[in-house]
This record gives sequence, C-alpha cells and structure tokens, in this order.
Amino acid sequence: MIKGFTLPRTPKGTASLVPHPPWHYVGNVVAVEYEADQALIEAYLPEPLTLESTKCCIYFVDWQYASAYGEEYLDPAESQYKETIILMSAAYKGEPMAYCPYIWVDQDKAFLRGLIQGWPKQIGETHISKGFTLESKAAPAGRFGATLTVNGKRYIESQLLLNEEDAEMPSPTFSGSALLRYFPNLENEKHHEPLINELVQLKSRDVKVSMVSKGDAKLNFVVSPEHELSDFKPIKVLDGYRFQVALTVDDLKVLEKLI
Amino acid sequence: MIKGFTLPRTPKGTASLVPHPPWHYVGNVVAVEYEADQALIEAYLPEPLTLESTKCCIYFVDWQYASAYGEEYLDPAESQYKETIILMSAAYKGEPMAYCPYIWVDQDKAFLRGLIQGWPKQIGETHISKGFTLESKAAPAGRFGATLTVNGKRYIESQLLLNEEDAEMPSPTFSGSALLRYFPNLENEKHHEPLINELVQLKSRDVKVSMVSKGDAKLNFVVSPEHELSDFKPIKVLDGYRFQVALTVDDLKVLEKLI
Amino acid sequence: MIKGFTLPRTPKGTASLVPHPPWHYVGNVVAVEYEADQALIEAYLPEPLTLESTKCCIYFVDWQYASAYGEEYLDPAESQYKETIILMSAAYKGEPMAYCPYIWVDQDKAFLRGLIQGWPKQIGETHISKGFTLESKAAPAGRFGATLTVNGKRYIESQLLLNEEDAEMPSPTFSGSALLRYFPNLENEKHHEPLINELVQLKSRDVKVSMVSKGDAKLNFVVSPEHELSDFKPIKVLDGYRFQVALTVDDLKVLEKLI
Amino acid sequence: MIKGFTLPRTPKGTASLVPHPPWHYVGNVVAVEYEADQALIEAYLPEPLTLESTKCCIYFVDWQYASAYGEEYLDPAESQYKETIILMSAAYKGEPMAYCPYIWVDQDKAFLRGLIQGWPKQIGETHISKGFTLESKAAPAGRFGATLTVNGKRYIESQLLLNEEDAEMPSPTFSGSALLRYFPNLENEKHHEPLINELVQLKSRDVKVSMVSKGDAKLNFVVSPEHELSDFKPIKVLDGYRFQVALTVDDLKVLEKLI
Repeated sequence: MIKGFTLPRTPKGTASLVPHPPWHYVGNVVAVEYEADQALIEAYLPEPLTLESTKCCIYFVDWQYASAYGEEYLDPAESQYKETIILMSAAYKGEPMAYCPYIWVDQDKAFLRGLIQGWPKQIGETHISKGFTLESKAAPAGRFGATLTVNGKRYIESQLLLNEEDAEMPSPTFSGSALLRYFPNLENEKHHEPLINELVQLKSRDVKVSMVSKGDAKLNFVVSPEHELSDFKPIKVLDGYRFQVALTVDDLKVLEKLI
Repeated sequence: MIKGFTLPRTPKGTASLVPHPPWHYVGNVVAVEYEADQALIEAYLPEPLTLESTKCCIYFVDWQYASAYGEEYLDPAESQYKETIILMSAAYKGEPMAYCPYIWVDQDKAFLRGLIQGWPKQIGETHISKGFTLESKAAPAGRFGATLTVNGKRYIESQLLLNEEDAEMPSPTFSGSALLRYFPNLENEKHHEPLINELVQLKSRDVKVSMVSKGDAKLNFVVSPEHELSDFKPIKVLDGYRFQVALTVDDLKVLEKLI
Repeated sequence: MIKGFTLPRTPKGTASLVPHPPWHYVGNVVAVEYEADQALIEAYLPEPLTLESTKCCIYFVDWQYASAYGEEYLDPAESQYKETIILMSAAYKGEPMAYCPYIWVDQDKAFLRGLIQGWPKQIGETHISKGFTLESKAAPAGRFGATLTVNGKRYIESQLLLNEEDAEMPSPTFSGSALLRYFPNLENEKHHEPLINELVQLKSRDVKVSMVSKGDAKLNFVVSPEHELSDFKPIKVLDGYRFQVALTVDDLKVLEKLI
Repeated sequence: MIKGFTLPRTPKGTASLVPHPPWHYVGNVVAVEYEADQALIEAYLPEPLTLESTKCCIYFVDWQYASAYGEEYLDPAESQYKETIILMSAAYKGEPMAYCPYIWVDQDKAFLRGLIQGWPKQIGETHISKGFTLESKAAPAGRFGATLTVNGKRYIESQLLLNEEDAEMPSPTFSGSALLRYFPNLENEKHHEPLINELVQLKSRDVKVSMVSKGDAKLNFVVSPEHELSDFKPIKVLDGYRFQVALTVDDLKVLEKLI
C-alpha cells in the first residue's frame, strides 16, 4: 500500500511533497489596503458570492513553515517561502468574507498546500524589506518596500511609511477567506467538466497576531494593461500595515458545490 | 461567469495558469536505463499494477512548450522548462506500461499541467549538457552530463559517452505511462479520503522522435540514504541515450478508480 | 605559497573561482542589429575611442564553457550560462572596433572572467528560444524570442523571424572588441584614483562560426526611461541573426593606460 | 567623460553596478565557532600572516544594504542578499587579525563590493532560519538552521540551540579582517604576474551590535572531500551565536604589497 497526503505516494509516505496536516506557519506581513474598480473586479466572484465593497488588500508575506512531523525550521531552504496575496471584499449569504483572485508563492510545497485549500496559486518572486532593531541607514525606521515579479517581469511595487503603532488589522483579512477548490479534467470532451469545483472557506486555528503598525502607502501595478491582473490595479490607495502572524491549518469548510 | 482551464479562474479566462489543451511540446532528451532493487521498488506500484521487470529509465529533458492559444515560444521565460523523470517497468492487466514514482520540473505551469495528468511533480533544478554542431573543447563529441538538485541538495548525477547512432529508443518509455491522478481532502476527519484517486494512462498524439544516439553511461544517486528516493538507486547501470522528441497532449485515459 | 588564477587563492589552487586560461567557449547566438541615438550613446566611449557609426548590435548567447583543466561540460550546472551583450560601433586610431557599454551574465565564473577581460558585467537573466530539428508547434521554423531581466524587472525583449540562410555575420562583432579594464580603489581620499584603468582589446583564437541565418526582428527596451540603459534604445531596428560560435580565450591586448 | 565607481562606466555614472562609498549595511547573523585542522588550514595564509590559533568561525548573514545615494531599502530585490563567511585566526606582525579563505554571496553588487575590499567572493545560496516574536511551532524558541549551497550542491549545514542571552561576540570577528586584494592579468606570458596583489585590512565605521545570544551548535561540511574547501571542516564544534550588526564601509587599509 502506498501512502502520503499528496503525490508522490510512496511505500513509507515520507517522500510526499506535502505531509499530513497540521501545518504550522509564522510570518512577517506587509499589507496595503486600496480601492479597485467595481466594474472590473465584480465579475471575478464565483456565484453565489456577492461584492461587499470595492476595498481590496494586498499582502506580502515572508513565511516560515513546519509540519507536525518534521523540524523543517532547521532546514530553511525547505521551510521558508514568500507570498503575495490579493484579497477582495465579498459576502456569502450576507456574511462578509474575503475572496482571493490572485496569489503567488516561490516554493512547490506552498504551491501544492495552496491548491489543496483552494488558493489559486502561481509561482512568483516576492521581495519585502526587513526591519531591524539596530538603527541603520540601510533600514530607516518605518520605511518598507515590497515587490512581485512573475516570469521575469515586475508586476507590483509598493512602498510604506509606517508612523502609527497598535493599529487595527487591515481588511479584508485572509482568515476565513472564501476560495475555489478546483481540479480540471483532461479527458477529451470533458475539458469543461471539472472533477472538483467547490466554494470552500479557509479554516485556521491557534491564530496569533502581533501589534500592528500602520501608515502611508504607495501601490503600483506595473503589469501590462493587457494582462487580466490589471483589473485589480488601485484607483485609490488607502493605508499600509506591518505585523507578524502565526497560525495552524488542518481543516477546510465546504460552502457548496458549484456546477 | 468565471472561466479558465485551471485556477486562477477569471472573467476572461486568459490569466489561468494553464490554458485549455492542446499543449504542444518539443524537447532534447538525455536518458539512462538501469536496474533497481526489486525489493525496494515493487511496493511503489498502486494496485492493480504489477512489476514487469526491475528495469528503470531516468530521463532528463530540456523542453519548449506552447499552447494552441499563445505564442509562448516567443517568450522563452514562460515556455521553457527542464524536467527529470524516473520510470519503472510495470504492467496493467498483462499490458506492459511504465509507471512514474518521481518527477521534478522547474516551472509552475509544467507543475500544474503535470498534476492534471497524474504526474507526481515536485520542483527541482535539472541541468543537461548541450550538444553543438561546431567542434569545441567546451562540448566534446558525444560527452554529456545531467544532474538534479532539489531544495539546494544534489540528488542525482549522470554522465554519458555516446558512440552509436540510429539506436532503438530506451525503455520503459514515458509515452502511455500509467500515472496516479490524486487530490487529497483537507477537511478534518477526511484526510485519508482523497477527492480524486484514479489510475490513469497518459495519452499523447502527433509524437515525433529524432534519430537516437546511444552509448555508455554512469548514474549516481547522491541523495541521502534516509530519503525514500534512494529506493530507486541503480544496482546496475545499462545504456545512455540522447534524442529529440515532439508531442501534443489533450486527452487522458482513466484506467480505474482506486479506493 | 597560495595559488590560483583568481581569488580565492588556496594551497592547491584548485578552488579558485576561475582557473588559469585557456578558457574554451561554444554557444548559440541570437542577435539584432539596430541604430541608436548618436546624442545619447556617443558619450559612452572612453577617449581616445571615437564613434564610428550609430549602428549597435545586441547579442543573446547561450554558452557552454570548459577550462583546459576540468571537464566542466560534464557538470552543466557549472559550465552553462546565458549572456546579453550590447555593442556599439567605435574606432581606435582609425581602426573600427566594437565597444561594450553593457553586458549581463547569470553566473559568477562568467562574471569574474568578464571583469578580468574588461567586460562591464552585471548579473541578469537571459532567456532565448531554442531551435529544434523536429517540426513542432512549440518551435515553429525561424521564430525566436530573447529577453533580459535584471533585479526582477524585464529590461529588453526581442523577437526574430528568420527567413534567409547563409548570411553575413552581424556587426559590430564582439571579436576584437575594445573594453575597459578597471578596478577602483576603496582607500579613503582615493575613490577617484582607480588601481587599474586601461583601454584593452579582446583577443580570441580558434574562432569557428556556423552558417548564419538572417531575417526580420523586433527589439524593445522596456527598461524605465530613468535608467541610463535607456540611452541605448533602438531608434531603428535592422536585421535579426542566429548562428553558433566557438572560441578560445587566453590573452588580452593593452591598447593604452587611461588617466 | 565617463563616470562611476565601478564598471559599467557611463556618462552620468548612475548605472555603475556599485555606487561610490559609503555603503551602509545591517544584518541578522548566525555564527558557529569551531576548531579546524592546523595541518590543513595553515597554508592558506599569505605571508607575512601567521596562524594565531586553529579557531575558526563561520558566519551566515542575512543583509540589507543601502548606498548614500539611493533608497535601495525600498527595492528589496536590489538591497537584500545573504552571505556565508569562513574566518580563520591569523596574526599580522604580532597583532591578531581574522583572515577569510572562503566567502559566498547571492548577488552581483555584493560580489563586486567584496572583490574591491579583497573578499574572495563566489556566488552561493545561503539559507538561515528566521526568529519571530510570536510563539509558533514553525519557529521554536532558540532553534535555528543555516545552510550553504553552491552550484546546486549542499556544502555546509549548521544547527543551533541558543539558551544564553547577553553573551560575548564570537571570534575571530570579521571587523578588521585581513584580506587579499587581487586582480590577475590575462595578457599572455603574464598569467602569473597579477596587476594587484596586496594584503589589506577591512575598515568599517559606525559599527553597532545587538545583544548576543549563545548556545549549542552542530556544523557539518557535506562538501566532497576532493574539494579544497573540505580543508576547513570542523574537528571540534564550539558554540553557536545569533545577533544583529550594522556598519558602514568607505575605506580600506593597505598593509603591504605582495610579490
């Protein structure tokens, strides 16, 4: 009998790309709230989600991960990855709920864990300025940048000047997001009949959040206007945020099957 | 209505990571046939596959890809990727059929197309010596190397000295391979009840193969003996091969659903 | 006594980043001739070089390398690299001679060999379409793309449609280029007194060139107009080329010391 | 007149790979002190340096950088890099002074700044576990790993369990290290007559160091025993350290010219 939570399935099950949950995460987050164009983004929502507002939030996260079975934090080449997440403000049956139209990570394990949860993951390079406790001209207080590059092209650039401590979290938040669990069928004549097509809701537990810093932000979508991603370009940039978050994932809620 | 063959599903469907089939491929292949240890590899086969022989073949491929909808070959950062494939000699109901226990690619599009076909893809860096028509001490006639690195560790190293033209193709061949189409369920209590678990068979069409070169080969698994991959280390190295292949994929055959 | 042609200098000298010459190269080249703006590029030439014409040529090269001491072609992770070279048409004491204002490679060994020759190397990612002998929709006859990405930003994009065989080589050619051998001084008060500042001329031997294909080309500098590199953007694109070249380097000619 | 502290030298001097000093740095450091084999390492020292002791220290550093002219910290793809440094305990005319036999960085700007200072830099991938203020199973208190990969091969692995606060800095320290400023000559017949060959001493100013954590460490050189780097493998591992450092560089001291 072959074993393992994901492919490759093997006799011992220790070579699977992603081990059985729970999956533990801790990360440094830079986020920018902004308004996008309702006419461009509303059509991204799978029914029966509705648009709650045009407020979006882009998160740039520097993650460290460990499973329950390994000590992945001791092999940082395997346990670290960076992520860019765009969330829009949706509602499901009247309940406000974020929805994720686009997300990029830089590692296969995070990519596959994402697909399993319904995150529409792609590979991209996220870069995020670091903060330091020592004073240095290489890291001036409160000044941070974050960028996304995909297939060798810069897509998104952001800059923050934080000047307020102990702020509220940005919104929409990725906790409890609605996602699309989806797996297409390659069999001829069935290319339009996916094997899995469900609206699901992210579940996480043991969530901890640090104090939140807040301030001014710039946000630029430098992606080609011919790329659909440009639908999510900001029409008004709101505030910038920085905080730390820790959480554990080992469950998912199915909201409903889609046709 | 959102569209697209895969996530992300979008209003126009042009931002999906993988477009609708057909998918066209052409690549330069270096391959090494070898014998592995029956006691270690037999348990990799999902029932009802049976072990046909202990002969394995490892393929290192430098691919260029295009869909039916784009001109991806004009943006080589998007259309090129490299791959390492291990195949073992299985049989399904008496019919010889390769089975893939491990495979690595270096690109997200190839990763997701792979999962859709049942390839147990992971991200890894494949390097393959190039051949040139000009005579050069930087590319001596018939001498090639190929290596695989995963998570910053060298896993596999191979060297070839080709001295025979117009040879037969190596075997087992990846055309018509049996694969495992698999998608796990993250819902609590259902971690051992996958949403998809099927034995499928790869289908390709318009397959073209160049003349095949053949010769002597070395093959070394330098992966840690604690890694399950070491089950596939060679106990006897057979011949080395080099050729070019082109093919198109837009179908898949379901052999049977697994429990 | 420590040994080695470059740092690190070690007891045996086998760990030096770059071994003693000769260095052997073979590569596949895609090139585009174009005209740039005289007012923007003329000031790039160190005296006593003069501008011969506004004709430039950009080369995208996929190299394989070996020293006289190793068999680097058998470890392709060490022996392969890609390069983008911009050349302008200069003259030295009346003799036409290319001059290189900008060049990017993706490997440290090539970077350091470059500095030793006077190439103004930086790290960048070059991607080049591959040609195949098999017919495939993934590699249509004569159609090639080449791109340069630096620090996560696309700088240059090019496309070729080749339709003529057995053409002349493009010009200016990198063989015999004038370069600047330069090493600054970090000692305080001497930041403007370089330790080395010489006009040199590239020497290569055993040069072989394949048949040359030629055709139409597009060339786009997508780099920010604030970057000095935009000085070299095309005002008129001429022809595109594709060929193979092999050469050996173990010498350099000093033209004159600069002040 | 062309300008710039390094190649490429350009009309405005803003495209040079490395801008004029000063260069500002701040970084998170993981370090392991250890003893190496005197018979293997002593011959690494250029005369007149002498071996002070067999104590070595390996530093893994996650740096952020800015020049005096840019705001590089706002473009993290340009301002961040990681580094692995091996230092040995030398003395110059009776004065204890670290000497660097091997160092790896993952960025061209850091590579070239290094050569200018005499660091024997090569490109390699350093990975270092991150610490977080939130409690998480993905980052247990005091547990860190650090690794070095070069050309797709893991070379060095380290693990730390820190359990002591407010410790002394490790030694030998990189501040005030002796280095070899070296530039070879490619002119035929002069391959053994370098253009620059000087013993120099690193100078830094505005150095700030955080509180230092200390504890137990493991250190493994997994590099092939045929590679000269294996000369520096530990024969006894001492303590592990973690701290933050900030410094500025704009000067260098020449100790003496070597023949």
